[in-house]
Amino acid sequence: MPRVSQMHLDRRRRQILDAAGRCFAAEGFHATSMQDVLAASELSAGAVYRYFPSKQAIIEAIADETLTHIHTVLTEALNRTEPPRPTDVLGDLLTAMAGLDDAKLRIRIVIQVWGEAIRNPEVRDVIMTRMTEVYDVLTQVVIRAQKAGLMNPSVPPRIAAETYIGVLPGLMVQKAIFGDAFDLPAHVSALRTLFGS
Amino acid sequence: MPRVSQMHLDRRRRQILDAAGRCFAAEGFHATSMQDVLAASELSAGAVYRYFPSKQAIIEAIADETLTHIHTVLTEALNRTEPPRPTDVLGDLLTAMAGLDDAKLRIRIVIQVWGEAIRNPEVRDVIMTRMTEVYDVLTQVVIRAQKAGLMNPSVPPRIAAETYIGVLPGLMVQKAIFGDAFDLPAHVSALRTLFGS
Repeated sequence: MPRVSQMHLDRRRRQILDAAGRCFAAEGFHATSMQDVLAASELSAGAVYRYFPSKQAIIEAIADETLTHIHTVLTEALNRTEPPRPTDVLGDLLTAMAGLDDAKLRIRIVIQVWGEAIRNPEVRDVIMTRMTEVYDVLTQVVIRAQKAGLMNPSVPPRIAAETYIGVLPGLMVQKAIFGDAFDLPAHVSALRTLFGS
Repeated sequence: MPRVSQMHLDRRRRQILDAAGRCFAAEGFHATSMQDVLAASELSAGAVYRYFPSKQAIIEAIADETLTHIHTVLTEALNRTEPPRPTDVLGDLLTAMAGLDDAKLRIRIVIQVWGEAIRNPEVRDVIMTRMTEVYDVLTQVVIRAQKAGLMNPSVPPRIAAETYIGVLPGLMVQKAIFGDAFDLPAHVSALRTLFGS
């Protein structure tokens, strides 16, 4: 067997996830077959199945990746010297997500993932585990903001964290449906003004 | 031909929409066939196709119904003697939606509809038209609230309306995924406290 570097493995994995993402975004999760993913990835069946035994494993990996990205941005916010307002953190997160090359694609995939999570208990378990990690770190951001007098201290921090995170899906859905007519920077600004006091 | 009353027609239409809703919520839009809808509705093919020529026509009708319900609640808020805060209107709307017998089912269907709207231009057009009507009336609620000093006047009313409506999908997604562990009344309260000033 030839030696295969970690970088090579990561690149192949990326190639499959990108191809699957394009298929899911265009056709939806159910209308996409593993054959479609193979064709889009331009890899052999053996190569693809080595990384992902099923379509479900791919959607779990994509969901995982998106929630890991959100978790990372929130952890960075938590570690800032000056505690930020949660709405400023959300605004930064939205701006970062909107700036990604494949932002449009990712939003479409995330909406597919929700649909799958409510039907498929295994996908739901993955999402719940990762969302709980996101809640945990945002709850810490809220506790710091409340201590610093940056937000209303009367709301239980966990509930507040869930309420703040709950702003993201609505912006994603509207952006996905209205496209360029939906002015995301204006909404990030409105979010800070309306929900940041 | 026997005479068929409007009430009879409405009841049959309701029977089909309810049956289709159960199928879509359980299996998703794509994995549900018209045959599944026929079986679940316990009606003949002829009876079902008289009301809905296609699966897409059914999902359009379901989306339409949900957005009409939201529009009605917002219009009532607009016509109140005392202008309400937009977050109070959203709180009332969420409480009303959560109180419906089939709330869980409706949330699952709405998430399916978003997935379909981003893939299917005809469904998207229906959603955009009805969402625009929802924005229009919520924009009027915002203008009244701004004039009454109930919310920050610096945010353009239309952007504010879109930001407020954007709170709903995130609560629905979290409720659908976490079920009973997601305390909706606590979130309605948090919404009013955190976003209502």
